[in-house]
Amino acid sequence: MSGWDGWLAAQRAERERAGLQRELRPRPADDELLDLAGNDYLGLRRHPEVRRAAAAAGWEWGAGSGASRLVTGTTTLHAELERELADFTGRESALVLSTGYQANLAAVTALAGKDALVVSDAHAHASLIDAARMSRAAIEVVAHNDVAAIRAALAAAGSRRALVLTESIFSVLGDAAPLPALAAVCAEHDALLVVDEAHGLGVAGSGGRGLVHAHGLAGHPHVVLTATLSKSFGAMGGAVLGSAALVDHLVNRARPFIFDTALAPAPTAGALAALRVLRREPELPSLVHRRGAELAARLGVPPSAGAVLSVPMPSPRCALAAQAAVLTAGVRVGCFRPPSVPDGVSRLRATTSAALDDADWSRAVDVLARVVDEQRAAGRRTA
Amino acid sequence: MSGWDGWLAAQRAERERAGLQRELRPRPADDELLDLAGNDYLGLRRHPEVRRAAAAAGWEWGAGSGASRLVTGTTTLHAELERELADFTGRESALVLSTGYQANLAAVTALAGKDALVVSDAHAHASLIDAARMSRAAIEVVAHNDVAAIRAALAAAGSRRALVLTESIFSVLGDAAPLPALAAVCAEHDALLVVDEAHGLGVAGSGGRGLVHAHGLAGHPHVVLTATLSKSFGAMGGAVLGSAALVDHLVNRARPFIFDTALAPAPTAGALAALRVLRREPELPSLVHRRGAELAARLGVPPSAGAVLSVPMPSPRCALAAQAAVLTAGVRVGCFRPPSVPDGVSRLRATTSAALDDADWSRAVDVLARVVDEQRAAGRRTA
Ligand SMILES: Cc1ncc(COP(=O)(O)O)c(C=O)c1O
Ligand SMILES: Cc1ncc(COP(=O)(O)O)c(C=O)c1O
Repeated sequence: MSGWDGWLAAQRAERERAGLQRELRPRPADDELLDLAGNDYLGLRRHPEVRRAAAAAGWEWGAGSGASRLVTGTTTLHAELERELADFTGRESALVLSTGYQANLAAVTALAGKDALVVSDAHAHASLIDAARMSRAAIEVVAHNDVAAIRAALAAAGSRRALVLTESIFSVLGDAAPLPALAAVCAEHDALLVVDEAHGLGVAGSGGRGLVHAHGLAGHPHVVLTATLSKSFGAMGGAVLGSAALVDHLVNRARPFIFDTALAPAPTAGALAALRVLRREPELPSLVHRRGAELAARLGVPPSAGAVLSVPMPSPRCALAAQAAVLTAGVRVGCFRPPSVPDGVSRLRATTSAALDDADWSRAVDVLARVVDEQRAAGRRTA
Repeated sequence: MSGWDGWLAAQRAERERAGLQRELRPRPADDELLDLAGNDYLGLRRHPEVRRAAAAAGWEWGAGSGASRLVTGTTTLHAELERELADFTGRESALVLSTGYQANLAAVTALAGKDALVVSDAHAHASLIDAARMSRAAIEVVAHNDVAAIRAALAAAGSRRALVLTESIFSVLGDAAPLPALAAVCAEHDALLVVDEAHGLGVAGSGGRGLVHAHGLAGHPHVVLTATLSKSFGAMGGAVLGSAALVDHLVNRARPFIFDTALAPAPTAGALAALRVLRREPELPSLVHRRGAELAARLGVPPSAGAVLSVPMPSPRCALAAQAAVLTAGVRVGCFRPPSVPDGVSRLRATTSAALDDADWSRAVDVLARVVDEQRAAGRRTA
């Protein structure tokens, strides 16, 4: 046995002791389970127009784009999607990347560098944290949504280029960032605010144009957006949205863009079709919010700013037991426990997706409300 | 104008002065140009079975996978592809990721850390370099294919965990790594050799099983493979191939895997279909090699270990002029100039793809041979 085998075995033993070992469970195309765990917020992933567009592009263009974007990988599909995404979000330009993860890596590494400062919200997504590390900038992590701490960090930055990283609606807790205050602080110190709209675009703001747009910040010169095409848009991929000069800079300098094969035709066309459905049906996000309000009321938790409802549980064990119990009843929800919760509180994570029909939605709500009540009662008994 | 606008403008001005400014040029689905710039080595990207599989999956499964792999994003398609990739390459297990870029990020960051040493070949791909940076390990860059330098670095590593990063066939120069010697050095020092088979899989080795397999290293305990599904397999995505324990570790610890939406159904199914075509037609790679040998002879350069032929040119200006001249004649090739060549030598990069039919291939070869001769003559006149 090599030292590496021993190291891998020890790592696994440690995970098992902590109850953190996880396994992949493949699902079929047509799952019997009601899915409140995924991120198909608007139910567009399998919308007939979206499926048809993905299928047609796979057939017409082939399975892949064949090369990186600057070589021969840029197709008219990418160009169309970029034009319409920029228009939808009210930004001058958009750049599509292979994943939302790489969109964050590209934006942060091309703008920051060894000579820069990155100020990151304590609840920021792994891809933003990894982006900051990859950039080799100095990193300062500030408390969640703490505008004063950001101001202090920027004031101390002196003449260095500085980026502030946040999400518009946070992925685990579902709460919103104080975007107007953050944009103001960044403008004050000439820092750039990078807002990851992964969970905002498609659900927040008028017609799903995102939280940045809702706050009238779409044209703000100190705000850069990143987004995913894998959640509300039901496909795969990511985007960076900002000025034409910013996009030009990324095309020429962002390694996770330049040295990566272009997003495949099917998800590119799928995302474009989803965006067009959303533009035609701007009331789509309101169903997500109605369902979110209903579920929050039933569970006695505050409503979400987007489609992610966070349900604190009395203990990691209760959270796991609740997830298992709803699964037995045919409903899938997410379960987050330390160390993957930013605040140490175990919780269920339920997405109030428009993908379910009304009957299925009602059934899911009933199951969830019953199980959460039971587990809370169990938590009180053992406390 | 904000400081950032000024910075972006200055960066662009610098690129323009250096002649390095680049723009995206969208292409239609059916390009008139003969493509010797892309990475569709086996011509499988638009193979009828591959297109059909991509289209069918887009329709049946939807445009996206809906969630990250550990939540509900793992489909039976991913599981099938992983099983067949592992079997094809002779490894115990495989893990599919959204891009080849993220496969490298995942493998390196989950295995290395602040307490580790990463030794990287000077010609390693941007994604391997970025992976090393993201891992926060100590990084030592050694001269290209310098086994003695790697041995020295590992000897100096002491008891730290150590990774060695290389490509099997290098992406720009098309040369091969001395894999048996590298594996032996790594075994000697209990280091792990991470071999990026992006340009090896599908073209090198018996039936395209890759250069690691060709050297009898598929079962080597100190060798980990990474691969892309975006080149020979004509789709999109990446993979890490190794022991079951290694894959289990990545599933539980690799952030670019855990916190990223699963690869979309269409490229997953497309890659699987491409793999099946290749298994049924194991002689497919030999066409790439025959064409490579023919083109190398016509251009007077050494043949490539894979599908990438590197053609040194007398100057950056000659390289650019040659690229433009072949384009005018209807052929697209890549052009690499400083700073994006590892050795400072400007060159054309032509891929000897099976995607073209014989007549188009002959036409492309004639164009390329004529233009390269002309530019070399021009280079001699100005020298
Ligand atoms: C906030 C946030 N940013 C980025 C990502 C990454 O996006 P993608 O899955 O498209 O790579 C995710 C989740 O997947 C996310 O929740
Ligand atoms: C050697 C090498 N590794 C990794 C990658 C990244 O793979 P992908 O384009 O699938 O992200 C590439 C090129 O794209 C490459 O040339």
